[in-house]
Amino acid sequence: MAKELKELTPRSVSYSQWYQDLVIKADLAENSAVRGCMVIKPYGYAIWEKMQRILDDKFKETGHSNAYFPLFIPKSFLSKEAEHVEGFAKECAVVTHYRLKTNHDGTGVVVDPEAKLEEELIVRPTSETIIWNTYRNWIQSYRDLPILVNQWANVVRWEMRTRLFLRTAEFLWQEGHTAHATKDEAESEARQMLEVYADFAEKYMAMPVVKGVKSASERFAGALDTYTIEGLMQDGKALQSGTSHFLGQNFAKAFDVKYIDKTGKSEYVWATSWGVSTRLMGALIMSHSDDNGLVLPPKLAPIQVVIVPIYKNDEQLKLIDEKISGIVAGLKSLGISVKYDNADNKKPGWKFAEYELKGVPVRLAMGGRDLENNTIEVMRRDKLEKETVSCEGIEAYVKNLLDDIQENIFKKAFDYRTANTVSVDSYDEFKQKIEDGGFILAHWDGTAETEELIKNETKATIRCIPLEGDKTPGVCMVTGKPSAQRVVFARAY
Amino acid sequence: MAKELKELTPRSVSYSQWYQDLVIKADLAENSAVRGCMVIKPYGYAIWEKMQRILDDKFKETGHSNAYFPLFIPKSFLSKEAEHVEGFAKECAVVTHYRLKTNHDGTGVVVDPEAKLEEELIVRPTSETIIWNTYRNWIQSYRDLPILVNQWANVVRWEMRTRLFLRTAEFLWQEGHTAHATKDEAESEARQMLEVYADFAEKYMAMPVVKGVKSASERFAGALDTYTIEGLMQDGKALQSGTSHFLGQNFAKAFDVKYIDKTGKSEYVWATSWGVSTRLMGALIMSHSDDNGLVLPPKLAPIQVVIVPIYKNDEQLKLIDEKISGIVAGLKSLGISVKYDNADNKKPGWKFAEYELKGVPVRLAMGGRDLENNTIEVMRRDKLEKETVSCEGIEAYVKNLLDDIQENIFKKAFDYRTANTVSVDSYDEFKQKIEDGGFILAHWDGTAETEELIKNETKATIRCIPLEGDKTPGVCMVTGKPSAQRVVFARAY
Repeated sequence: MAKELKELTPRSVSYSQWYQDLVIKADLAENSAVRGCMVIKPYGYAIWEKMQRILDDKFKETGHSNAYFPLFIPKSFLSKEAEHVEGFAKECAVVTHYRLKTNHDGTGVVVDPEAKLEEELIVRPTSETIIWNTYRNWIQSYRDLPILVNQWANVVRWEMRTRLFLRTAEFLWQEGHTAHATKDEAESEARQMLEVYADFAEKYMAMPVVKGVKSASERFAGALDTYTIEGLMQDGKALQSGTSHFLGQNFAKAFDVKYIDKTGKSEYVWATSWGVSTRLMGALIMSHSDDNGLVLPPKLAPIQVVIVPIYKNDEQLKLIDEKISGIVAGLKSLGISVKYDNADNKKPGWKFAEYELKGVPVRLAMGGRDLENNTIEVMRRDKLEKETVSCEGIEAYVKNLLDDIQENIFKKAFDYRTANTVSVDSYDEFKQKIEDGGFILAHWDGTAETEELIKNETKATIRCIPLEGDKTPGVCMVTGKPSAQRVVFARAY
Repeated sequence: MAKELKELTPRSVSYSQWYQDLVIKADLAENSAVRGCMVIKPYGYAIWEKMQRILDDKFKETGHSNAYFPLFIPKSFLSKEAEHVEGFAKECAVVTHYRLKTNHDGTGVVVDPEAKLEEELIVRPTSETIIWNTYRNWIQSYRDLPILVNQWANVVRWEMRTRLFLRTAEFLWQEGHTAHATKDEAESEARQMLEVYADFAEKYMAMPVVKGVKSASERFAGALDTYTIEGLMQDGKALQSGTSHFLGQNFAKAFDVKYIDKTGKSEYVWATSWGVSTRLMGALIMSHSDDNGLVLPPKLAPIQVVIVPIYKNDEQLKLIDEKISGIVAGLKSLGISVKYDNADNKKPGWKFAEYELKGVPVRLAMGGRDLENNTIEVMRRDKLEKETVSCEGIEAYVKNLLDDIQENIFKKAFDYRTANTVSVDSYDEFKQKIEDGGFILAHWDGTAETEELIKNETKATIRCIPLEGDKTPGVCMVTGKPSAQRVVFARAY
């Protein structure tokens, strides 16, 4: 790959083209032969695996177990919850047959009309229906509650306009589905998982998020409340990054799931569901990366440190190899993932561009002069700053540097969000400010009508009613009616 | 759950009913509302997760990375490799539409006839076709090789007769797909992965396996060679537990995947694929378990040690709690997963039956007399043997015991297999011995005709041509024609 092949469309020219270039050229993902379905390439998948491992540990720490439910959902299940079917029927992949047969005119295989399913199956767009149908048999008494289950799975929603990671027909996610004896317990669970997501976003992805609750129009189909974390991307658009739903008794009623309480009374069970998906990869990319490529927070980088030798001849390379092997061992002993790239078919400049593109947080380079001076060149990807430091104590130096990069990336994103969050009090000002991107805090009268009007006129949606921050009441910027608190508006992905 | 609910049909009455009872009652899996698709319950999934983690580490140690390819495969892809389509077309779930619509006569949702796909999509039964279609764009030169990729995924094969874990319409698996510059390298890869599987089966699952190569009739559809590990279940039937395929250039030719070698010549790429699935859960269960329930090798047990207090009153329980908390901490510090079950709504006898059913390798129980004597009761699940030992050094004692159980389980299965493997030289003797179950080593003339005749007459199949052991030539037991070595016959799952 020549150097120009690594160049990205600058963000200032086209943010969406920059994003597309970056996903492809950094080997994260690509489009497949199947409309809307992506291939997640090894480097992209390695980042997703790191996300999975951290989230999975958090789910287990909070008492959840993993399980696995069928890919297919009988068509009739979808209709059992009225809002749910409205939300998902329009984008379902439908399995109608279970066999192909050879076409003897030489045109390959055709669907065998004799192998038609009695009832069509939907490829799961989400699993509330099949899971609550299962829970009916798992739950008899209060002793069987709570059920705290998560599954890692693929789901399919037949989107017409897709973008790698952000919106794909098939995506990977986790979906937690819990069952509780009381409303309070279910609400606490939904809130707890929102906190887990927010903590993950901020501490690991280095992405500040606003925690809030969705307006009725933006709720998950079948939920009584949808909690959300909202990130702000570099182009000023919001990205919904994780949601946690309080489902009330809707699915318990739809699938007749009751339990006998301590007093012997039969009650419907209370539910939550919560999920994050490979969309987080898009959020990660758009929170930190630059025109040179990915910028990864060290905690999610598959390779945290890369070391490149710069040598004139084999003899010098041998000396550098020896010196570096000690440094590699030292870094590994501190739990740092490190790659020593002494491949001889690529030049140092090529390697530098490659690892910048791939967002490796720290690059070390050692040449002849470094060897003499017992020094090494250190480049931090987030600031693209180089310095030459002593090899003495380099391991601890790098470890601290990784921590510093993690913090700095978060701070940069946090400062960006602060600079791009404004409060406005009039609709005129709103219409002006929305063009600049960013979060707008404004008063809203709480009606779907006003929300719809704002959306139609400005393309801005209510991202959430924030749980924290200023709770001062006011009047709606559009109608002048009372408003309990400011809500967050933005144009969104 | 009353005690009788935990009782299993004895193996001597019906092995298949015992298996079914065990899978259900030990909370491993259950049938779902969708024909042939199972729900893997949290306890069963926890075992599968342990398998996944160990295998995944082994794949990475041998240089492989994970990636993810689409769930759907365009129908036409399947026909590109002639044998492949023959093998899979008859059991494919086919997606024909991408939308449902509400039926206004109140019968719920129906398939929207206007949302018909131009080309039907197959739910992947295996991913060679979509992956090799992708590899075409990843491979130009020898520098792009090898590609060493694995994916963890769900696949669907529309089986008519299904059994939990052993044969289900949807199952979970991993599928490795590698691309190489030379035939030798691809063959080595296929053999290497066979060794990885065999090592996993024997060291972790404690299941002895025969490594071998399949006869042509039993090969994977599209492979030049299929390597297999074959286990012997307690009922004398064989279970194919993992396969690794040398695919030659078949898929490279079907999808036109070529590379430029060092001399500038264009060559087709060489391929392997290899996989194990949730079928391993069935193998694990049927290798070791007994009429009381699961017997799990400690290395795959989600809970390795359970501790149950036996107390007369709260005061005594408090003293036991205190004593046990030190033991729990000590066991955990040795990396042992331990559960202290002091729940007060279940009696010790109920708990004992429960953890026996679930195959927890070691059970500790402490009562009033133990408290006085500073002792604890130790029960090992594999032998159902109890002894009372001192609390001094109990942690190291348990750790050694777990190692001993792991070894003992393997040895028991190994001895069983040895006792149930016979060499026969005449077809009459073969027909007699096959009724006893077990592996039969016999000479075969290498033809599909003889293989087919034996299968039709005895229901026995050639499990493999073993790679190790006696390689003495002989004459076919059926036709008297020359045979290069004995092969392994058995009736199989």
